[in-house]
Formats: sequence, C-alpha cells, structure tokens
Amino acid sequence: MRVLGFDPGTATTGYGVVEGKGTRLIHIAHGVISTPAHTHFAARLRTIHEEVARLIFEYKPEAVAVEKLYFSRNVTTGISVAQSRGVIALAAEQASLPIGEFSPLEVKNSVVGYGKATKQQVQNMIKILLNLDAAPRPDDAADALALAICQVHAGKVLRALEG
Amino acid sequence: MRVLGFDPGTATTGYGVVEGKGTRLIHIAHGVISTPAHTHFAARLRTIHEEVARLIFEYKPEAVAVEKLYFSRNVTTGISVAQSRGVIALAAEQASLPIGEFSPLEVKNSVVGYGKATKQQVQNMIKILLNLDAAPRPDDAADALALAICQVHAGKVLRALEG
Repeated sequence: MRVLGFDPGTATTGYGVVEGKGTRLIHIAHGVISTPAHTHFAARLRTIHEEVARLIFEYKPEAVAVEKLYFSRNVTTGISVAQSRGVIALAAEQASLPIGEFSPLEVKNSVVGYGKATKQQVQNMIKILLNLDAAPRPDDAADALALAICQVHAGKVLRALEG
Repeated sequence: MRVLGFDPGTATTGYGVVEGKGTRLIHIAHGVISTPAHTHFAARLRTIHEEVARLIFEYKPEAVAVEKLYFSRNVTTGISVAQSRGVIALAAEQASLPIGEFSPLEVKNSVVGYGKATKQQVQNMIKILLNLDAAPRPDDAADALALAICQVHAGKVLRALEG
C-alpha cells in the first residue's frame, strides 16, 4: 500500500510518500510545496491544489493521510492551515482516493509506539523505519512521512481485521 | 459590477448575486449550496467546489466576496468553515476572479451604515437596498447577499478614488 502524507500549511506544505510491503516500509519521496510570501491567499491555495494533484499523478498513492486539526494556539495560522487542508482533501477526493486523518497522539503511537514521544524521537524512528541516512528535512516533510507511515500501519490493521 | 458573495459552511454555504448599476443595487439571485449530513468532509468540499464553479459560470460575476474569518466560539466548526472557504477561494482563483474579504463590522457599516447593527437591521436593509418583498431566506443566503453588497460598495469607492 502506497500512501501520500501531507502536513498542510500556507507557506510550506510538507509531503511524504511511503510504501508498505509486507512488514517493510519503503521510503519513496518527501519534500515540500512552497508558496511565495506576499501572494494572495487564493493564489497560494491554487498552487497547493495543483501541486497536490501533480504529486498524486506522479506517485500514484492508494491513500492520502492528513493531520486531524485542533486549533488552540495560533488561531490565524489555524484558519490558513485549515484552508490549505481543504484544497488538499479536495485534490484527493477528485482523484477518488481515501483520506486518513490522524491526531498527533495517533501518529506518535503508530510511529514510536508511545503517545508522549518527543519530536526528536519521532524523527529518529522515521529515519530507522524508512532506512534513511539522516532524519528527513524539513520538519514539515518529516511530519508528512510520519502521517504516511501511520496510514500504512492503519491500513495493515484494517486488512488484518478484514482478513 | 456584478458580485457573487459566499457565506461558507459545511452543511450549508449561502450565496448571493448582486449587481451595482450607478447608484442602484440589483438583486440577481440568492440561495444555498447544501451538502448531505453523514458524508465525508472531502466529498462535501468537492460538492462545494463544483457548485461554486457552476455559480461562477452561470452568473459570470466580476468579483467574489467572502467573510474574513476569526475563530473564537466553536473551534471545530471553525475548521470546517475554513476548509469550505478554502475551496470557494480556489474556485474563484481558478476563474481568475478577485476576492474581497470583509469582516462582520465592515459588512454592517457598508449595508446599514452602523457597525453595531443587529442581524435584524442588516436583513431589513438588504430587503430595502435590493427592493425585495421580504428579507431573503435562509440567513446564510442573506449574509452572502450582504457580503456581495459590501463588495459592490467597496468597488465603487475604489473606482471613485481611481477616477
């Protein structure tokens, strides 16, 4: 199962592609969609939507994973993150892909096996699980890979339950 | 100048079309985009995006108006409203339309001439300004008409300043 994970933002949206083969996790790609500062928010949303559609076309995932949103800290950032998440979900839906949503707690449990894991511990586990030479950079891309891993794990559980 | 205003939501997105001719405001249409409950949020976003694109095609506005978002009360509703707003802005951008953003204060000032106007006062003024037999229903459509009126007024000010 191949999953495309997204960590949505306005300036930077991280993405990560992970494939699950049996018990193995294979790193396919990761990176960021960047939109220039001082651009109208609608133009940025259009860029994000187009790039997500392009990534889906390029990597042909079977599912998309995004973070569950809870606003508490920065409300203004929260609005623009939710808008970005909306156009990412739209692109996934337009490609008829299922969308997994995971909370930070679920991601930590799935990647590290411990819900209170630190960011550093999550990044180290991503490096180990995906057999990378270094922790993936930037953080947004690492978070997107973690979401993709979480979705691969969730898919396995689902198939085990169904089988 | 013809403006298409939107009051975004997940279950119900209000829309309203208003045309400014000289000092006159002409009511063209209003209504709601409804998405069925118990549908995945991405499917609802797709419906909203498609319907907004269809309304733009049907009414051929020169601008789109949406509310400025500030989250304070219901955070979960806020996330889904922002996601809807994202796909509305995307559809406007894909049609190369400018997007006006107005706060509730700006809308009240523009429609009633008084920033502390009640919802009832705003609805009465919409009825009078657009020469309607009754206040437009439902509230989401009335709010969308108010946003469109606000954008028509803002456009007039802009042209006066430019001229």
